Amino acid sequence: MTDRNIEAIVAGGSAVRATEGVDEHLVERRVRSESVYEGHFLKVRRDEIRLPNGKTAWREHVVHPGAVMIVPIADDGLLIIERQYRYPIDRVLLEFPAGKLDPNETTLHCAQRELREETGFRAREWAYAGRMHNAPAYSNEFIEVWLARGLVAGPQELDDGEFVEVQTMSEAALFALAVTGELTDAKTMVGLLKLQQWRSGAWSPSWQPAE
Amino acid sequence: MTDRNIEAIVAGGSAVRATEGVDEHLVERRVRSESVYEGHFLKVRRDEIRLPNGKTAWREHVVHPGAVMIVPIADDGLLIIERQYRYPIDRVLLEFPAGKLDPNETTLHCAQRELREETGFRAREWAYAGRMHNAPAYSNEFIEVWLARGLVAGPQELDDGEFVEVQTMSEAALFALAVTGELTDAKTMVGLLKLQQWRSGAWSPSWQPAE
Repeated sequence: MTDRNIEAIVAGGSAVRATEGVDEHLVERRVRSESVYEGHFLKVRRDEIRLPNGKTAWREHVVHPGAVMIVPIADDGLLIIERQYRYPIDRVLLEFPAGKLDPNETTLHCAQRELREETGFRAREWAYAGRMHNAPAYSNEFIEVWLARGLVAGPQELDDGEFVEVQTMSEAALFALAVTGELTDAKTMVGLLKLQQWRSGAWSPSWQPAE
Repeated sequence: MTDRNIEAIVAGGSAVRATEGVDEHLVERRVRSESVYEGHFLKVRRDEIRLPNGKTAWREHVVHPGAVMIVPIADDGLLIIERQYRYPIDRVLLEFPAGKLDPNETTLHCAQRELREETGFRAREWAYAGRMHNAPAYSNEFIEVWLARGLVAGPQELDDGEFVEVQTMSEAALFALAVTGELTDAKTMVGLLKLQQWRSGAWSPSWQPAE
């Protein structure tokens, strides 16, 4: 086996909109689309699509506005983390703060708003740390990751019916919980990977002031 | 701020079924549940729930059978990775092999089956690397992670209408793509975190033969 050249893969379109012909052998095309469930939170569509081999098939998928996750780093190095009950899995999860984008909201504005609302913290400095797709088989959700530092505490502004416990934890403790299996939230583990890449020198955050 | 004792957090129930009273201030209780969409792939339920403050609210959520992801490591150290078109996001993603559990299937059996079907590879040795929840706000999906080594190549057995390109890539190249943002699949980034924890000595896989 031979390693594959990174540039070739990038050019080949990993995580890149696949409309330029190079991935015609993989791409599925929409024939028609219908809404099958329009709830308060979840919207589900069912699309008839054309497969690369010309046959048709159906794709059912959740329509999501996108989200942000914040990795908040206090001046003493501790991370701000939430404990939150997640109804679908009947578990309390440890998670970095996160929330859905409002219409026409920039991801940085959303990150600042969600951090303030859920934890009470404001951050003086922000650094973009990339995007993830967390359920690409059946949801168009993406999560934009922001690091935040220069934290200033304030009051939580939780929505009515939102219950979030805010804690602080060292990076080492959080990494240890990911090893033991006590930390299972995928986006939070991706946040840990970003921190690890920063600490190892593979990546360096580009800090900017709050908007 | 003070660091928080790991044992206290584990005892407090992170990622642990929250039914023992310690998290009563966070837990939501089902009042009633109804199916609102029953598709070929997606099943959606809408539940009336009781919040910790006694009020009621609704939770809409996808019912998923659970899944496995395989991190396949060839004898020369290269990783087996897939390029696959994901309709909901209109992108070709780089992903470790993964697939849904069949009814009554063990996660290891599922991992062996999915690796063989999607990539053609069989693996002589397997090591469990933990669980993740990838969309806990609106899906009960969990993904069990298995490392696989001692790979033997064979023919792909793709389902009709499944199009998957199999490649090999070094760990370093895959980490680099996660830094540049070309790799956006959350479960695959969690796989990279597991590999990093192994390489750094924070965790050591416990290998077992194939079932």
